[in-house]
Amino acid sequence: MIIVMKNGSTKQDVDKVIEALKEHGLGANLSTGSQATIVGVLGDKAKLGGFDFELMEGVEKCVPIMHSYKLASREMCPDGRVVRVGEEVIGRKKLVMMAGPCAVESEDQIMQAAEGVKAAGARFLRGGAYKPRTSPYSFQGMEEEGLKLMRKAADACGLKVVSEVVAHDQIDIAGKYCDMLQIGARNMQNFRLLREVGRAKIPVLLKRGISSTVEEWLDAAEYIMSEGNYNVVLCERGIRTFETATRNTLDVSAVPVVKERSSLPIIIDPSHAAGKSRYIASLSLAAVAAGADGLIIEVHPNPKVAMSDAAQQLTPEAYGTLFQKVGALAQVVGREMA
Amino acid sequence: MIIVMKNGSTKQDVDKVIEALKEHGLGANLSTGSQATIVGVLGDKAKLGGFDFELMEGVEKCVPIMHSYKLASREMCPDGRVVRVGEEVIGRKKLVMMAGPCAVESEDQIMQAAEGVKAAGARFLRGGAYKPRTSPYSFQGMEEEGLKLMRKAADACGLKVVSEVVAHDQIDIAGKYCDMLQIGARNMQNFRLLREVGRAKIPVLLKRGISSTVEEWLDAAEYIMSEGNYNVVLCERGIRTFETATRNTLDVSAVPVVKERSSLPIIIDPSHAAGKSRYIASLSLAAVAAGADGLIIEVHPNPKVAMSDAAQQLTPEAYGTLFQKVGALAQVVGREMA
Amino acid sequence: MIIVMKNGSTKQDVDKVIEALKEHGLGANLSTGSQATIVGVLGDKAKLGGFDFELMEGVEKCVPIMHSYKLASREMCPDGRVVRVGEEVIGRKKLVMMAGPCAVESEDQIMQAAEGVKAAGARFLRGGAYKPRTSPYSFQGMEEEGLKLMRKAADACGLKVVSEVVAHDQIDIAGKYCDMLQIGARNMQNFRLLREVGRAKIPVLLKRGISSTVEEWLDAAEYIMSEGNYNVVLCERGIRTFETATRNTLDVSAVPVVKERSSLPIIIDPSHAAGKSRYIASLSLAAVAAGADGLIIEVHPNPKVAMSDAAQQLTPEAYGTLFQKVGALAQVVGREMA
Amino acid sequence: MIIVMKNGSTKQDVDKVIEALKEHGLGANLSTGSQATIVGVLGDKAKLGGFDFELMEGVEKCVPIMHSYKLASREMCPDGRVVRVGEEVIGRKKLVMMAGPCAVESEDQIMQAAEGVKAAGARFLRGGAYKPRTSPYSFQGMEEEGLKLMRKAADACGLKVVSEVVAHDQIDIAGKYCDMLQIGARNMQNFRLLREVGRAKIPVLLKRGISSTVEEWLDAAEYIMSEGNYNVVLCERGIRTFETATRNTLDVSAVPVVKERSSLPIIIDPSHAAGKSRYIASLSLAAVAAGADGLIIEVHPNPKVAMSDAAQQLTPEAYGTLFQKVGALAQVVGREMA
Repeated sequence: MIIVMKNGSTKQDVDKVIEALKEHGLGANLSTGSQATIVGVLGDKAKLGGFDFELMEGVEKCVPIMHSYKLASREMCPDGRVVRVGEEVIGRKKLVMMAGPCAVESEDQIMQAAEGVKAAGARFLRGGAYKPRTSPYSFQGMEEEGLKLMRKAADACGLKVVSEVVAHDQIDIAGKYCDMLQIGARNMQNFRLLREVGRAKIPVLLKRGISSTVEEWLDAAEYIMSEGNYNVVLCERGIRTFETATRNTLDVSAVPVVKERSSLPIIIDPSHAAGKSRYIASLSLAAVAAGADGLIIEVHPNPKVAMSDAAQQLTPEAYGTLFQKVGALAQVVGREMA
Repeated sequence: MIIVMKNGSTKQDVDKVIEALKEHGLGANLSTGSQATIVGVLGDKAKLGGFDFELMEGVEKCVPIMHSYKLASREMCPDGRVVRVGEEVIGRKKLVMMAGPCAVESEDQIMQAAEGVKAAGARFLRGGAYKPRTSPYSFQGMEEEGLKLMRKAADACGLKVVSEVVAHDQIDIAGKYCDMLQIGARNMQNFRLLREVGRAKIPVLLKRGISSTVEEWLDAAEYIMSEGNYNVVLCERGIRTFETATRNTLDVSAVPVVKERSSLPIIIDPSHAAGKSRYIASLSLAAVAAGADGLIIEVHPNPKVAMSDAAQQLTPEAYGTLFQKVGALAQVVGREMA
Repeated sequence: MIIVMKNGSTKQDVDKVIEALKEHGLGANLSTGSQATIVGVLGDKAKLGGFDFELMEGVEKCVPIMHSYKLASREMCPDGRVVRVGEEVIGRKKLVMMAGPCAVESEDQIMQAAEGVKAAGARFLRGGAYKPRTSPYSFQGMEEEGLKLMRKAADACGLKVVSEVVAHDQIDIAGKYCDMLQIGARNMQNFRLLREVGRAKIPVLLKRGISSTVEEWLDAAEYIMSEGNYNVVLCERGIRTFETATRNTLDVSAVPVVKERSSLPIIIDPSHAAGKSRYIASLSLAAVAAGADGLIIEVHPNPKVAMSDAAQQLTPEAYGTLFQKVGALAQVVGREMA
Repeated sequence: MIIVMKNGSTKQDVDKVIEALKEHGLGANLSTGSQATIVGVLGDKAKLGGFDFELMEGVEKCVPIMHSYKLASREMCPDGRVVRVGEEVIGRKKLVMMAGPCAVESEDQIMQAAEGVKAAGARFLRGGAYKPRTSPYSFQGMEEEGLKLMRKAADACGLKVVSEVVAHDQIDIAGKYCDMLQIGARNMQNFRLLREVGRAKIPVLLKRGISSTVEEWLDAAEYIMSEGNYNVVLCERGIRTFETATRNTLDVSAVPVVKERSSLPIIIDPSHAAGKSRYIASLSLAAVAAGADGLIIEVHPNPKVAMSDAAQQLTPEAYGTLFQKVGALAQVVGREMA
C-alpha cells in the first residue's frame, strides 16, 4: 500500500503517519517528490486491521498495490490450473462444451435436450433445477426432481451434469446428482454459499456477478479455494451496462485479463450475455477466438415453449451447426474440441 | 404486453401470432399503422408460461407493459404502508434515524457507539455481526456473540436493533436479538433468503443491490411480501457507475421514483454510498430534502481503528452535529425527527 | 507517479526503470517491501512525454498521483472562485436560479416564459437556440433569431440570458445576445469549442458529460481557464447508468466532491437528470441541501405543446411553487435566494 | 408509438388522448386489456412535434416503436452497403486492415510506421494530427504539418490515409491529405461536425461514443447520410463501464447487433478498447470471429517513447504476427484479407 500525502501536508503529518505504521509493526519508506510526498508501507498490510490512514490529517489517499487473492492468482500457479470433472479436463488444449436447457421442465424435455447436445458433440449437460427468478411469481424450477431427471438423461447419453445451487443446504442434495455445481451471477458474493461449496470439494462453475469487477470475481474464487477446493472454473456471462440492445454486455476482454491475473480456466456463456438466440453464434466464435477454455450454451428441444428465457435458447440443430463452426475455428487458434 | 411486428412481416405472420395467443387462452387486438403492425395482448400474460413471441417469424420485439410486483406497488396501497418496529413507526411524518458501527468489534466499542448515537437522538442501533466481505481474509464479524453485545448495548440505551443476516439459517438466531433484520446489497437477489425472512415475519430493511434497477428491487420486496411479511423498508445505498470519486453513486432520484411506484417506506444509507465520511453530511441532507423517510449512518467511537470500512464512519460528535442539521431541515420539508 | 514492479521482477528490471527515469531528467525513490518493489518518481512527470513504463520488463503498473488540472483546483483558490455575470454573483451565499424553456420556439412563448420565471424570482433566462438533437430529423432550434427573441424577452423582464453554443463559430454571434454561454453535455470534450469559449472571455456554464468523471469535467474546465477565462460555472445534469426509471441518474455526490477538489461554483440541472417533470421538485431540494450554488430548471408556458423535451418542463406556476420551497430550505442550509 | 394508460385511468382520460391525436392528424387504435388500456398511434409520429402524452391525465407512459434513423437502417439496404475508398472496398468479403501510430510525431516516425504496417499487409495508414486530449497540457498533435507527413509516408508505401478531424473548419484542410476522415468517440454527437463531414462527401470512419447506445450511434450516422454522404464505416472502440481492468469494455456484441439493424460496415478498434497492448491480439481475433469487417490498430515503431497512448501501441513486428493470425482466422469465418 502507498499513502499519498496532500500537497499542503506538514512534516508533522508525515511523522504521525509513520508512527501509526510503526505501532502496527510496519515500516515506512518516504519518497519526497517535487509535487507530493509518498509513504510506501513495508510489511504485511493485514496487520493494519481496519486502521484507515485516509482519516489522518494531511493524507490525500491510500493506493492498494497488491491483489487480495492469492490461491486464485497466476503467480501461485504460472502454468495455469487444470480442473478435472471425472475424466473431463478443463483448462488445457481441449475446449469444454456445455449445453442444455435453461430449466429442466420434464423428463421428455431434458432427455431430448441431452440427446441433442450429445449428438452435436457436447460433453456436459446443463439445466436449472433451482432457478433464481426476479419475480416470485415466475416458475422456480423442479428442484430435486429436476436433478434426478437430468442425471438420468445425462447417464443415458454419457454426459456430465452441471447445475446451479442457490442455497447452501442444496449442496448435499445436488452433489448426489451433479458432477459440477454452478454458482450463479446473483450469488457470486453469497459468501456463505461460496464457503460451503468450497468445503464440499465438488468442482465449481463460478459465474461472474452482473456488475462485479474481475478483481471481485477472483476474490469470490478465493473464497472457494480457501476452503481447499481448487476445482474452480470461471464463467463470464455478460455485465450490466447502459446498452440495452443485448440483455447484458459480453465482456470478452475478461478472457485475456483473467488469463493474465489468474491460473483458473475461464469459459463463456453467450446465451445470458446476448439474451437473444440470433447473436449466440457470433459471440461464441468471438469467445473462443479470444482464448476462452470453453462455452456453456442454452439449448432447448423447442425454445418457443420453454418455461424460462425462451428467447436465448438454441434448437439442437442450431447448436449442432454452431458446434461445427466452433470446431473449425478452434484449430486455427491452437485448440481442439473435447 | 405488446407484440410489435417487423416492417416486412406478412399477414400470415400476424395470423400465426394471433393463433398462438388463442392457444394460450389470450385475445389479441390488432393495430395496423402506416409504419408498423402491433398486436396488443388481451388477458393475463402469465398464461403464456415461457412462450416467446420474439422467436416467431415476423416479430420485431415484445414490450412488457405491466410491473411484475403487486403487493409492493403503490396501486395496492395508495396512502403508503407504515412499518412498525415495536413502538417505532416508519413511513409517516417522523424520520427514522438509525446509526452505529459498520461491525460490532467489542463490548466497549458497541456500548460507546450506542451511547453516542442515543445521545445524538437516534432510535435504532445498527451494527454488523455477520459481515459479507469481498475477501475471505478480511474480518468476518463476531456472529452471535456480536448480536448479544449489540442487544445488551441497545437495551441499556433504549434503542432498537437492526443487523444483517447473510444466510437463511441465521434468521432464527438473529431474530432472538434483533428488532429488524437487514438484507444487504449483495443478497438483494438471494431469493431463498428473501423468502425465509418473509416467513419469519420480522421487520426487514431491504438494501438495494449495487446494480439493481428500482424494478428489480421492488420485485425483491415482493418476494418477502409474498410470504406474508409486509414490514419491509427499502434502503438506497448507492449504485455502481463509472464514477470513482465516491465508493458508489447515491441515486437520490430513487426516492421520488419509489414513492411513485411503491407503497413502501424508503430510507438512505449515505455512508456506503459515499465511502468517505466527509461527504456524509451533504448526502444526508440531500436525502431528507428529496423525501426519504429516514437515514442509516455509520458511527464509530473511534473510526481510525475500526476493523472495517473505517473511512466511511463518523464519530459520535460528528453524528450529533449532523443530527441537528437534519432536524432543522426536516421541519422545512414537512417532516419531524423521531 | 508511482511505478509498481511485478512480484517476480529482477534487480535488473528495477535498474532499467531507474535508468529510464534518469534519461528523462527524473529521480527515483526505491521502496522494497515484503510483497512488492515500488519506484516513486521524483520530478515533473511531464518530462516523460509519452514514455510508458508499463511496457518495460518487470513493471506491473503505473499509478498516477496528481491531478492534471491546476487552475480549476481547490488548492489554487482555497476560498472558492466567484463568477460574476454583470451584477449577478455566482458562488457565494446567494443561490443562482436559472429557468426557461428547453428551446426558444416563438416570441410569444419566450416572452411568456420570461415573465413567468421572473415572477417566480429567477434571475437568468435559459432557452436553447442551437439545439443538439440525437436525430437529424428533430427540431434543431431557431438559431440567431431565437437568441434575438430571448434577449428581447430577458431585457423586458430584467433577466440575464444563458444559452448553448454547439460550434465555435457561433460564439461571436451568441456573445452579442447572451450574458453567459452554455457548453452542453455532448460537447464537454469538444476541446476546440472549450478553447474558443475560453478565448471569448464570456462567462461559461459547463455541463458535465453524460459519462464523464468529475476529474474529466475539471480537466474540461481547465481547457477554458487555460485560455484566461476563469468565469466558469459547473453544472451537474445526470450521468448515464443502468437505471432507466429516470432519464439520467443525478449524481448529487458530485456537489461535495467538486467543492473539495475545485474552486469553481457548481449548480444542478434537475430537469435533464430526471427527464420527468414530476421528479424535479424532489431533486431540486436535494441539490440545494447538498450544497449546490444554484439550479437551472426547464420552464415552459405550455409544456404539453413544447417542441422538445416536453416531459421535463415545468409550468410557470409549478416553478413558482418550487421556488418558494427552495427558498425556505435555503435558509436552513445557510444560503439565501438571489 | 404506443400510449399505455394508467391502471385507474377513466374513459374520459382515454377520450382526451384520442382527441389530442386527432388534433394532430393522427388516428388511434384502442386495445382494452384486463390489466391495461393501450392506445396505438396511427400515422406519422413526426406530426406530433413536441406534444407529450406523458403529461396528460391518466397516461402511464409512451413506448416508441420505430427507429429514428432511416438511411442507416438495414431495411433501406438489406444486402448491406459497400464503402469505397479509392480502389479499396469496405463491407464485403475482404477485411479492411488499418494501422499506424496514435499520433504523428515526426517524419521518421510516421515513415517507419508506414513501412512497418505496409510490410505486415495493412492497406490504410492511421495517425492523429489533431488530437483530442483530456488535459490542455498534453501534446495536441502536429496538425496540418502532421497530415502532410502522413500523406507523404502513405504515398511512399501505397497506403490510404485515415485521420481524425475534431472541428468542422479542419475538414477542408484534412480533405486535401486524407482518403477518409475519422470522427472520434468524443465527437460522435458533435452534430455540426457530422453535418459538415456529410456535406464534404469524403468517406467517414465514425467511432462510437464512449457511452453511446447502438441506436444513438446509428442516429449519428444518419446525420452524415442525411447530407448525402453514404460512405460511412462504423467503428466500435469500447464503451465505459464499471470495469477498470481494461481502459474501456469492448462491446463485441455490437457487431451482430449493427449487422442486424444497419446496412453500414463495422470495424473494431481493439487498441482503445483494451488500453493495453498485451490484450490487443486476443480482442482482434474475437472481433473478426464475431463478424467485424476490419480492424484499426495502433502501431508505433517504438511504443515506449510514443508521445501519447504508449501503452496501447504495438510494435510493427507484433503487428505483423497478429496480421498473420487474423489472416488464418479470416478464412475459417468466410472472410479474406485485403
